This record gives sequence, structure tokens and C-alpha cells, in this order.
Amino acid sequence: MTHNTDTPVTILGLGLMGQALAGAFLKAGHPVTVWNRTASKADRLVAEGAQPAPTVGDALKAGALTIVCLTDYQAVHDVLDTGVNLDGTTLVNLTSGDSAQARDTARWAWQRGARYLDGAIMAIPSAIGTAEAVILHSGPKPDFDAHAATLGALGTVTYLGEDPGLASLYDVAGLTMMWSVLNAWLQGTALLRAAGIDAATFAPFAAQIATGVAGWLPGYAEQIDNGSFPAEVSALETDVRAMKHMVQENETAGINAELPKLIKAMADRAIAAGHGKEQYPVLIEEFTKP
Amino acid sequence: MTHNTDTPVTILGLGLMGQALAGAFLKAGHPVTVWNRTASKADRLVAEGAQPAPTVGDALKAGALTIVCLTDYQAVHDVLDTGVNLDGTTLVNLTSGDSAQARDTARWAWQRGARYLDGAIMAIPSAIGTAEAVILHSGPKPDFDAHAATLGALGTVTYLGEDPGLASLYDVAGLTMMWSVLNAWLQGTALLRAAGIDAATFAPFAAQIATGVAGWLPGYAEQIDNGSFPAEVSALETDVRAMKHMVQENETAGINAELPKLIKAMADRAIAAGHGKEQYPVLIEEFTKP
Repeated sequence: MTHNTDTPVTILGLGLMGQALAGAFLKAGHPVTVWNRTASKADRLVAEGAQPAPTVGDALKAGALTIVCLTDYQAVHDVLDTGVNLDGTTLVNLTSGDSAQARDTARWAWQRGARYLDGAIMAIPSAIGTAEAVILHSGPKPDFDAHAATLGALGTVTYLGEDPGLASLYDVAGLTMMWSVLNAWLQGTALLRAAGIDAATFAPFAAQIATGVAGWLPGYAEQIDNGSFPAEVSALETDVRAMKHMVQENETAGINAELPKLIKAMADRAIAAGHGKEQYPVLIEEFTKP
Repeated sequence: MTHNTDTPVTILGLGLMGQALAGAFLKAGHPVTVWNRTASKADRLVAEGAQPAPTVGDALKAGALTIVCLTDYQAVHDVLDTGVNLDGTTLVNLTSGDSAQARDTARWAWQRGARYLDGAIMAIPSAIGTAEAVILHSGPKPDFDAHAATLGALGTVTYLGEDPGLASLYDVAGLTMMWSVLNAWLQGTALLRAAGIDAATFAPFAAQIATGVAGWLPGYAEQIDNGSFPAEVSALETDVRAMKHMVQENETAGINAELPKLIKAMADRAIAAGHGKEQYPVLIEEFTKP
């Protein structure tokens, strides 16, 4: 698909992120219409060539594609559930929210004759428009395909599936990964600082481990999808012996040990459930329990 | 330094790991002497060219370098604290243990006139002898330098510092990173499976995030070493709003939410301590508290 920069794009919501989105479309050469409740937030973008829309209805009419980026889903309904005509519009809702809100809002939009894609932005405003900005989309595939090239002006655009809730779920799963890597690194940093090693010395080692383990995930995922966990590398009961050391070293160092203890507790439960001779990904059963 | 394969090496302890270590030295061309309490464990290695030593004393006399790889530190003392002459020997103790045991054993060996390096093997036996096997060493630098090339036959050999406890501490810190990446991936996998997405679909996404975040660690480490946490990317109080979503999504999906809750609890405490406008690595203060 070639990127047709003639496609007019509308942005609803000009917070820091909305402004960055509008700026990226302008930079890519699209005609851009902007609307914000406080109209003055459009000033800088208008100076750069954006068209200000006096009303939401005008804004929707101007764009073949409307990007929604408001404070929350309540604000989305406050702005769009006002009798404005949505029939035939395409909404791409990048507002932060959860998967239930995304699914509800998709149904609501579809009932009003709109096409609707949900999305999640895994980037800070300053990264928008670069490949570093990962933007997740979910909803009807034909609607994504029709606008994938245009959306590509915002960053690395990924389509996840038909369920509009998927973008939020992947976002949350990605954030869990992000904070877990950071927390594990902080835990190790605290442990080594107690022995006089500075954070900069430990960081490359921690980064190397995280990257190495990331490489195991596709193979481990196969075990989960197959529901079979042969101990090819290590059995859980062997891992737990090292986990005991891990908890002890952190306690002896006089630092917080909640994260090491949670790691050990999850593994202990899997062993109590009879999985001691299986491999680590068998813990999926513990993570799946309420 | 050229690798002098004439250097005779002794291995004490021929469990699966000890056998792998002896095998790697044999393969690299070193004269190898082996000892094990149950002598028959040496049979395969002797067939490959190793010399069996009838006693620990004989084994120590044969090697310029003695690798110790026993069940635990108690076994190390049971084998070496028997009146055998350690004066002038070089011991590299790769037995699994904690940092206090490593420091105590180093002092004990030094008092008996031995050179002593501690070590930790971050690899499974089948990886020994390949670059994939990461082996950590700590203790007097001259003693490491004298044998670095020989030890290189075992894998990727890293020197961490003079404190003999460092190898154990880095080992534990690395394992914390490993299990944290795996647990975050399992958490996300459980969440997405509840929405019908299989593990193989999510794994590359999770791997990409882990690798990306690993790249931030050196920069974040600078903030810790400088004790200054300006919110260049995001303020903690903004992060916590997304953490609330994270906890909710996992609870709504009816899966285990302990890991998301611990992530949020640590951040909540840092905010309660007045760090809401600072960046994530400020959590080092919470991780450093008992």
C-alpha cells in the first residue's frame, strides 16, 4: 500500500499527546483538522498549517479518519455522545483506558454507524512520529487495513486482532513486562550497592540477562500452547533451591525482599501442585488462578 | 595473554557440572586430574584422558589450578579441611553458595596459604565450554589474571571484583532478573489467554519490550549513582495511574494479580515518601529499605 498523504485526518483532543499526533500527521503532509474543548490549545498547530474546527461535528466531517485522544473514556462519551452524526465516520480511539471500556465504546460507535478501532500508545509524546513509538490497534481488520499506511505516520503501528479490547490488554501486558524488568534491576542494584558496587557497573550485566531471557520466550510459549513442560533445561525443584538463596541474600543484605519472596512463593505453589519435575513455564497454571 | 594449554588443571567433584568442567578442559588440551569421593564417577573422563587422583592431596599436587565443584560449601570443608596441604595451591571454588559462605571460605583458604577465587556458574552443564556459559569470578585480581585464559576454556568468563562474595551476589541478582522476566511474561500470557490469544502470539511482543527496557538500564543507573531522578520520560504519579489499570485488568480477567499489585505497592510507597514527580529509578529507595 502506498501512503496517500492526501487523506484528511482529524484529531479530537489536543493534550500533549494529541498535539504530538497532529504534528506527526502535518509533518507527513496530511491535511489536518483539529478540535479541542479549549480552542487555544490548537494555536501552535494552526500556525503549522492545521485547520481548527469550531465544533466536533465540523471536525468529524473534515476527516476521512478521526483520531480521538482525550483524557479518558468518559471524556470520549462527553464529546461524541452529544447527538453529533457519526454515521460513516472512522474513529481511531487512542485514549487510555481498559479493555472493557474499549469494547463498550466500540459497540456504542458501531450502533451509530461509525467504523471504530481502538488503540494504545506505548510511547511518550516526543517519540511520536518515529519508529520508536509503538502504537497498538485492535478492531475490524478491514478498517485497520484501510488506514494502516496513514496511521504509520505516527510510529510503528501494530494490528493485534478483531477484539477492540486487545490493544488495552497488550498495553497492560507490556507495561507489566516493563516494570518487572525495572524492578528486578532495582532489586539487583540494591543488593549489589549493599556490597559497594555502583548501579552503572551492574546495569550492563542486568541488561544482558534480560535480553538473553527474552530470547527464550518463543520456545517457552510453545510449551504453554502445547500444555507440556518437560524439564529440558532445569526442573522447578532445582530452581527453587536457588530461589531460597535469592531470598536469603536479599534478607541478609537488609534490603526489601518482597519481590524475591513472591518469585519463590509462586514456584513453591507450583511444586505443591505436583509440578516440581517440570520446567518453569508450568507456572502459567499459578498465574492463571484468581 | 596466550592460552597455555600445558597448564595442568585439577577438578574436585564430578557431579554433572564437575564432569562438564573437566570435559571442557580436556577438550581444550589441558592435562586434567580428577577426584571424586565416589571414584567411579571419573571413569568416563579417565577414558577421555583424565588422570584419576587416589586422594585429594594427590589431586591438589597435580594441578597448577584446582577447580572445586561440590554439592555445597559444607562439602567443600568436608573435603579440604582435613589436614591436606593447601599452601601454594590456587583454588577456584565454583560450588553454589551464598556470598557469606564465599567470603568465609576465602578467609579460611588464605589462612592456609592458598590462593582463592570464588565463582558462580550461570549455565547448565551442557553449555559448558561454549560462549553461552557465563561464569562469574571474584577474589584477588592477580590470581584471576594468572588463570583467566585457562578458565576461558569453560565459557564466557567475567571478573567482578576483589570481594569473593560478588560472584554469588551477581548470580542472585541475575537470577532475579531471569525469573522476573519470565514471571512478567507469564502474567501477560495469562491475561491475553483469557482473551483468546495464544502464548506464541504474545511472546515476541513481550521479548521486544524486555529487550527495549534493558536498553534503558545504563541511563537509569546514572540517575541512581547521581542520586537525582528528574522525570525526563515520565513522572511516577503518571505511571501509577497506568498501574491501577494494570491491577484492574488482571483482576477483571480473573487471574492472579499479586505481581501487578506488588508493582503498584512499591510505586505507591515511593509516592507516599514524596517522590511522585520524580522518575521510576527513584524506587531504588524503596528497594533498599528492609
